[in-house]
Amino acid sequence: MRLTVYLAGQIHDDWREQLKQKAEEKNLPIDFVGPMENHERSDNIGEEILGEQPNNIIKDETASQMNNLRTRVLMEKSDAVVALFGEKYKQWNSAMDAGAAIATNKPLILVRPESLHHPLKELSQKAQVTVETAEQALQALAYIFQEN
Amino acid sequence: MRLTVYLAGQIHDDWREQLKQKAEEKNLPIDFVGPMENHERSDNIGEEILGEQPNNIIKDETASQMNNLRTRVLMEKSDAVVALFGEKYKQWNSAMDAGAAIATNKPLILVRPESLHHPLKELSQKAQVTVETAEQALQALAYIFQEN
Amino acid sequence: MRLTVYLAGQIHDDWREQLKQKAEEKNLPIDFVGPMENHERSDNIGEEILGEQPNNIIKDETASQMNNLRTRVLMEKSDAVVALFGEKYKQWNSAMDAGAAIATNKPLILVRPESLHHPLKELSQKAQVTVETAEQALQALAYIFQEN
Amino acid sequence: MRLTVYLAGQIHDDWREQLKQKAEEKNLPIDFVGPMENHERSDNIGEEILGEQPNNIIKDETASQMNNLRTRVLMEKSDAVVALFGEKYKQWNSAMDAGAAIATNKPLILVRPESLHHPLKELSQKAQVTVETAEQALQALAYIFQEN
Amino acid sequence: MRLTVYLAGQIHDDWREQLKQKAEEKNLPIDFVGPMENHERSDNIGEEILGEQPNNIIKDETASQMNNLRTRVLMEKSDAVVALFGEKYKQWNSAMDAGAAIATNKPLILVRPESLHHPLKELSQKAQVTVETAEQALQALAYIFQEN
Amino acid sequence: MRLTVYLAGQIHDDWREQLKQKAEEKNLPIDFVGPMENHERSDNIGEEILGEQPNNIIKDETASQMNNLRTRVLMEKSDAVVALFGEKYKQWNSAMDAGAAIATNKPLILVRPESLHHPLKELSQKAQVTVETAEQALQALAYIFQEN
Amino acid sequence: MRLTVYLAGQIHDDWREQLKQKAEEKNLPIDFVGPMENHERSDNIGEEILGEQPNNIIKDETASQMNNLRTRVLMEKSDAVVALFGEKYKQWNSAMDAGAAIATNKPLILVRPESLHHPLKELSQKAQVTVETAEQALQALAYIFQEN
Amino acid sequence: MRLTVYLAGQIHDDWREQLKQKAEEKNLPIDFVGPMENHERSDNIGEEILGEQPNNIIKDETASQMNNLRTRVLMEKSDAVVALFGEKYKQWNSAMDAGAAIATNKPLILVRPESLHHPLKELSQKAQVTVETAEQALQALAYIFQEN
Repeated sequence: MRLTVYLAGQIHDDWREQLKQKAEEKNLPIDFVGPMENHERSDNIGEEILGEQPNNIIKDETASQMNNLRTRVLMEKSDAVVALFGEKYKQWNSAMDAGAAIATNKPLILVRPESLHHPLKELSQKAQVTVETAEQALQALAYIFQEN
Repeated sequence: MRLTVYLAGQIHDDWREQLKQKAEEKNLPIDFVGPMENHERSDNIGEEILGEQPNNIIKDETASQMNNLRTRVLMEKSDAVVALFGEKYKQWNSAMDAGAAIATNKPLILVRPESLHHPLKELSQKAQVTVETAEQALQALAYIFQEN
Repeated sequence: MRLTVYLAGQIHDDWREQLKQKAEEKNLPIDFVGPMENHERSDNIGEEILGEQPNNIIKDETASQMNNLRTRVLMEKSDAVVALFGEKYKQWNSAMDAGAAIATNKPLILVRPESLHHPLKELSQKAQVTVETAEQALQALAYIFQEN
Repeated sequence: MRLTVYLAGQIHDDWREQLKQKAEEKNLPIDFVGPMENHERSDNIGEEILGEQPNNIIKDETASQMNNLRTRVLMEKSDAVVALFGEKYKQWNSAMDAGAAIATNKPLILVRPESLHHPLKELSQKAQVTVETAEQALQALAYIFQEN
Repeated sequence: MRLTVYLAGQIHDDWREQLKQKAEEKNLPIDFVGPMENHERSDNIGEEILGEQPNNIIKDETASQMNNLRTRVLMEKSDAVVALFGEKYKQWNSAMDAGAAIATNKPLILVRPESLHHPLKELSQKAQVTVETAEQALQALAYIFQEN
Repeated sequence: MRLTVYLAGQIHDDWREQLKQKAEEKNLPIDFVGPMENHERSDNIGEEILGEQPNNIIKDETASQMNNLRTRVLMEKSDAVVALFGEKYKQWNSAMDAGAAIATNKPLILVRPESLHHPLKELSQKAQVTVETAEQALQALAYIFQEN
Repeated sequence: MRLTVYLAGQIHDDWREQLKQKAEEKNLPIDFVGPMENHERSDNIGEEILGEQPNNIIKDETASQMNNLRTRVLMEKSDAVVALFGEKYKQWNSAMDAGAAIATNKPLILVRPESLHHPLKELSQKAQVTVETAEQALQALAYIFQEN
Repeated sequence: MRLTVYLAGQIHDDWREQLKQKAEEKNLPIDFVGPMENHERSDNIGEEILGEQPNNIIKDETASQMNNLRTRVLMEKSDAVVALFGEKYKQWNSAMDAGAAIATNKPLILVRPESLHHPLKELSQKAQVTVETAEQALQALAYIFQEN
């Protein structure tokens, strides 16, 4: 049995890369998927495919179409979702993805520093698991496969 | 035909009250529901029902249980969801509720100032309607009932 | 028991008005809903609510948001869908609505002149009922309530 | 991870063949499926299987049964749907398939020349992605797999 | 609380009428619905609405469209389904309706004489309740409302 | 807006009666439903309807058919489920009903003395709300309707 | 792409064996599943597993449990269902399986001699395809895979 | 065709190990999954991942998060569920898992000694199959694959 796990959250550092590497070290049968992590390309993907757009509003709209296509297809393929929140950025996409995971009955693992406990309390209460580091999220996923 | 509409978003000013008043002036057959708007009570509802809790973590967990019970029951009863975003606050609950509305196929009306266009572009692309003021959201809802 | 029926199809003549009148004469317990029939207003509803838009593409996009909000809410409330096709117009919205009705398991009554038999053969085969006039569609709906 | 994509739209030129060839050149892990592209056979498949039918109405009905069986099975297997519209033909099957894809929550990529912007505005607003050429649709699909 | 119950089964005697009368005597808050019980009209309803058809096959096809429209709408509105089987008739519609009720998670009450125990054993095992008379089915429905 | 709430749990004392009385004192717009509380009748309902059965196994099987019919219809009608556990009895029906509520996405309010914390920890973690008395469950339900 | 197809219908001759053989000759990528075709074993499977039962009613009940377990698991795995009806036998299981296939949105291919046209007219109208021989059903399935 | 089967029930003896061994002897194409069977680790898994917790309530809450994550992911992957009940232990998790299986339409095989017939009668009536030993459950599963 292999699992597919979607990694939602900010795309400003390499936390996904670190997570994948640790999963590989543990030989976990998990395929990780997620959003485009090249931030600039993610913002420009509409124009990359459709050519220059008349203004920033339409540029953003076309980029969002491509990014949401990617998210929908990959999240639909996933057995569980990890959503990581940090101190920086608005992270509304992360919260929206978390809400979608919960609503479509995909188990959600919420990763957040304890300092964000209060503003994320409702999201945490709806999540299946709440932890403080991406490595703990990986341990929770590993537990699914362990025999004793 | 009456509709029920859930009003997601911050609970720090009286935007819901104003919206309801205008809907009444227009005689719209809409019942509006939403979260507990008394912020302090929303934070304390766990202890109000269960008595004093050992620490803030558990106090928050119990409050979230009650707030999420309310949200789930009321959103399930709703035909559409309005989610209002502003310049202030983290508003992760709003984004989570918006994600849940989209994922469960309830039409979402996103209200946000144009200044938030970029960080909300993916959410906007998934919403059914994006407007800039609560009054415009009401006009969109009114349009459902108009004959010509 | 009352039924709600969505009337999909062109908005260039008063076929809906005639249908409703006949239903009233027969005292049928049916509430009919449908798209905005004022064609001009349907095209301008985005600008009516959001103000003047930079170009026709965005004007159309905003109008579609409002029209689709209306269709989604009303079709979700419906127990059956009537889709009328005629010789004129592209009628892609009608076909899209018909496809949505079939896919969400709402019984579809297809109304089309016999001359359109061939191009609509796949849609007809998926419809629950195929007739040639709106009045026949009404008879099919009336049959649901008749005791003998 | 492999994806299956249904190619809805007219069957009068070889746009599917070209798309598949380009996907192969890019080594995309996508299996494309779609309707019977031999138009004559598609019209005659009822009689091919069941023998001569009494008249054209029944001939068409039986052909539609076979074509719809194919569409239902293949679309159910698909992760996304591409629907291509052109200047010619009624293309009601394409619109019906597009409506079905949207209603069953399969991401839809709409391909249409800009000249068809207005009559397809509601369908475009419901689609996940709107582009102007089949090659752009392929780029959008390729983006799902790209790492940076 | 009122319930709606669909009465599937043969239409050759007045068992539905008797059931409804007894339900009325007991003041049960149940609305009973079911197929057209006028057998001849049920067979002719296609021609009644669409005019004379070229042959019996098409006449039957059109009648089935109308009868299935009725069944789908009414069964969708129902909270439970009673399916009565007797010694006579093929009763394939009854079995199909029973299968549909089970598959869509509507509780099925199977009514059959003990003599039909063996051929209906799989259907009985899937039914929620199996009884021998329509009156017993009514008692089972009445039990839902009783306080002690 | 009225809610319907199913009261799962033991039927050996009058906790439901007390709950309903308090809800009435508070004028809560809630309709409470639940299992047959007359224990003896619940055990005999199969024979009451079908006559004497050959042995206890079949007597129990027939009674279960009637009790499960009641539970299925009433739980399907409910917006939320309260499940009360106490120190006595096996209460497997309560746990099964709780599992069904969770799996069908109906918010579950778990009521249990703190002494049962450990054996019910997984069920509690899946419940929307966990409290210690039926009165607290009522307060949680009342909170859904309160404006400030 | 491989498909799984459930073969519902009588188990008194070897029509399934013949169908499978022809599918193999055509190299169709289809896995066929179906009920236990050894009639005697199908009737005795309850006692085979659970030991002798007190009477025929319970013997049948236990056998039905095992047969329905098999049908549910295998039909759930299937992409389409073929249901064959003949002149003999009650075939209520076939009709129940056909009803379940339709209700769960699995395309149904109905196979019946023309002589059974009238009693099966409603079932035929709900089926995706109606043919007269198992070989024609196989041709319809083969058409799903053919390129031109 | 391979099946995945979830083994719910107590984790105090090696009944799962025995079952798996017998399945292997019979060469059954079944993958068995289930809860963590190391009872102590199951109770401590929260602290194992998250570090020491302030008290037993929170320790249990965190352990339950991990155990429920495992159950949800594995049960979602399963085609059928076996739930074993014995004379000892409260077994509320088993009943909850059984209720979830039934509610999500996964066939349930209930294993219980005859002595528990009465308290499990409603659960048994909802199960697809009821047997007395795990070996009989295995025979029922094996029957799904047997040709004659």
